[in-house]
Amino acid sequence: MFKHLLKPARTGAVFLLSCLAASVACAADKTTYPDAAASDPKTMGWMVGAPPPPDRIVRFADGSYFKFPAMRWSVSNFRQLMPTTNVSRGLGAPVPLARALRSDIDQLTFVPLGSKQSMTWEQSLAANYTDGIVVLHRGQVVYERYFGVLDPQGQHGAMSVTKSVVGTMGAMLVAEGTLDANKKVADYVPELASSAFGNATLRQVLDMTTGLKYSEDYADPNAEVWQHSAAGSPLPKPKDYTGPRTYMEYLLTVKPLGEHGEAFAYKTVNTDVLGWVIARVTGRNVAQLLSERIWQRIGAEQDAYFTVDSIGTPFAGGGLNTGLRDLARFGEMIRNDGQYLGQQIVPKAVVDDIRAGGDKAAFAKGGYDLLKGGSYRNMWWVTHNQDGAFMARGVYGQRIYIDPKAEMVIVRYASNPVASNAANDPVTIPAFEALARQLIAHPQ
Amino acid sequence: MFKHLLKPARTGAVFLLSCLAASVACAADKTTYPDAAASDPKTMGWMVGAPPPPDRIVRFADGSYFKFPAMRWSVSNFRQLMPTTNVSRGLGAPVPLARALRSDIDQLTFVPLGSKQSMTWEQSLAANYTDGIVVLHRGQVVYERYFGVLDPQGQHGAMSVTKSVVGTMGAMLVAEGTLDANKKVADYVPELASSAFGNATLRQVLDMTTGLKYSEDYADPNAEVWQHSAAGSPLPKPKDYTGPRTYMEYLLTVKPLGEHGEAFAYKTVNTDVLGWVIARVTGRNVAQLLSERIWQRIGAEQDAYFTVDSIGTPFAGGGLNTGLRDLARFGEMIRNDGQYLGQQIVPKAVVDDIRAGGDKAAFAKGGYDLLKGGSYRNMWWVTHNQDGAFMARGVYGQRIYIDPKAEMVIVRYASNPVASNAANDPVTIPAFEALARQLIAHPQ
Repeated sequence: MFKHLLKPARTGAVFLLSCLAASVACAADKTTYPDAAASDPKTMGWMVGAPPPPDRIVRFADGSYFKFPAMRWSVSNFRQLMPTTNVSRGLGAPVPLARALRSDIDQLTFVPLGSKQSMTWEQSLAANYTDGIVVLHRGQVVYERYFGVLDPQGQHGAMSVTKSVVGTMGAMLVAEGTLDANKKVADYVPELASSAFGNATLRQVLDMTTGLKYSEDYADPNAEVWQHSAAGSPLPKPKDYTGPRTYMEYLLTVKPLGEHGEAFAYKTVNTDVLGWVIARVTGRNVAQLLSERIWQRIGAEQDAYFTVDSIGTPFAGGGLNTGLRDLARFGEMIRNDGQYLGQQIVPKAVVDDIRAGGDKAAFAKGGYDLLKGGSYRNMWWVTHNQDGAFMARGVYGQRIYIDPKAEMVIVRYASNPVASNAANDPVTIPAFEALARQLIAHPQ
Repeated sequence: MFKHLLKPARTGAVFLLSCLAASVACAADKTTYPDAAASDPKTMGWMVGAPPPPDRIVRFADGSYFKFPAMRWSVSNFRQLMPTTNVSRGLGAPVPLARALRSDIDQLTFVPLGSKQSMTWEQSLAANYTDGIVVLHRGQVVYERYFGVLDPQGQHGAMSVTKSVVGTMGAMLVAEGTLDANKKVADYVPELASSAFGNATLRQVLDMTTGLKYSEDYADPNAEVWQHSAAGSPLPKPKDYTGPRTYMEYLLTVKPLGEHGEAFAYKTVNTDVLGWVIARVTGRNVAQLLSERIWQRIGAEQDAYFTVDSIGTPFAGGGLNTGLRDLARFGEMIRNDGQYLGQQIVPKAVVDDIRAGGDKAAFAKGGYDLLKGGSYRNMWWVTHNQDGAFMARGVYGQRIYIDPKAEMVIVRYASNPVASNAANDPVTIPAFEALARQLIAHPQ
């Protein structure tokens, strides 16, 4: 996520923290925000007109772009707000996704967690402030909807879904022998030796079991997330600024807290460190490597992009933006053991490793009440549910949800005012599971 | 061009002015700069490494990105330096350009203007600091070369070539009756009534015969170009800044100087005004309109993009960036009377109007010694040479050169240290004409 942007939305941030403490309550608490229709960014007319009306201008420098509801426009337009680097799809013809749209999905019903009243699938879209959603079943598009300012030609911020994409690349390099997961971070990036990362293994970084003094508590003005954010901002630093000036400089300053390998602790900086390791060993930053190794091989119909800091470092922890269908292609490739369009794009061993999951005991210490029994592996969230589903999760409800048993991939871009999946999980989890049951029962 | 960037390159800017006064001498004067090989941005290793070495970092905020030789990297990487907006090619399959490469081009010889020694075509590429060049003959690629950090998947700043693209769209709207070229700018954008543009006709804007107090003299710290530049910068304004804050706000402040319609005076702000008129009447900014009307219809293999100001206004006067082959597709479409891939994309009347050219007497007052007998129409430069060639020209040697008689389109991206076509015209003009002669004599 773009942390330097969240600061102005302090109200939402405070709310987020109470959500994390008591996840189920969050869905109900959302009544303090305008609903999806009232906050629809197209209806609101952000950045429309020459010039747009003053109260409909979204700016980067003043932080207005990250305040809800303007944020709903921003997440589909990050490149208009900050510098970015391209993830080329190559120059060939895209490979269209097969389509077999189903009419039995919108009326599916389920009961949100913590609720007694059932909801339809279609109602869930607005409840989750969905910007776009695509469902693949056996590789075919069975459902596709767009809202607000997102359309099939648009690109949306994947936010922390980025971590799973970067984690996949890290695991690829491990499977191929370019990286050794048992080696220490400092073995690859010696500059990090005196930081908290220096004596962490790559495995601990990939599974986020590092012990780091790094708080993403947005309500705390002294939380490390603000220093990380300031360092990574592409804007010029204030004259009296003495802190780190890039993502990499920030990572050098991260201090240890606790032991590595003990507990799952979800911290964005792990992915930034992985990005650095990847860049050092491959000579490619994560945007370049994603293009070469994946985006050019999945028949993508659009280039993707990463936001960058002031020296062009892609934000590995949250800077990826993609077309929704291309994210679906990526998810389908993962579902198919890394195979797609007749090529082995990601080694099967990587996908097997993700499916098998990480350390459940370590994960349990992370406090994700709605994901009990789950684990975290190679920067993917593994449910260990009856279908063996696993997923990538972004802060405003972005998701890649892969249900192997149902042969289903759901990709969703969203702009929920509450910056936590805890806000949408009570609706999302049972909705996605209900759809899986429907596809298994009625594969058509 | 990105004027807010040129300020640090004062030496080059002063040089430019002497070039304009005595155009032919410029080619010789270039010896004060490292040559193409010595300044090759790939060899120099700009922005390579994690992190790049301090002396190889290119930054936006400090203006370093526009100093030669770093500028040679920047022109292929503008989106990494500043916010941009997409020009979607759509989602379908690109239409490959037919290829029939010729081996007789590199050894073609010609005599540069003002020189007594002949030069080969291949030598001309380095002399002009070429980053990429594609030649189409009868629609087939007969020649294609890339240098430095540009490759077929890259996107390069078109700089003032942008003006011809935007001018084409303006002329399209005139041909279709959406705009009346005889109407005043203020008829479309009433806010401009009290500016110099208010009582100018659209025709005068399209042909740059407006009388404006607007100097692009980069050596003069009081030149209006700096105010334009400061207004359009996407960076936050200094606290004590009281001037215009966007491209549009700047246009409101432009004062008249002389009479409209008297003389050709090449001033970037005319294109920005045209962009504003286009946005007002179509409800689409120039990036959106370019996508809908042209980029989605020419079989483009890449999205293009525009740089934007702090409120998302595309820089109509110079902000377009494209893949080189896509620029070739655009040029070929124009050469074919606006027809391409079986569709009439630009009305034939528009291309006829460009070919016929503008007011030669007005043009002669513009002082372009190397383009004697030429004219300017719909933001295209018309040579009125024996082949009826016309062209789009960008500040560092970017060019679309259309030779109807030779059935030839040349598109070139370049990064000449001298910010004026006067520096490369002595080589470019005879080189392109020699190639035209060759293609006519030996069409193969």
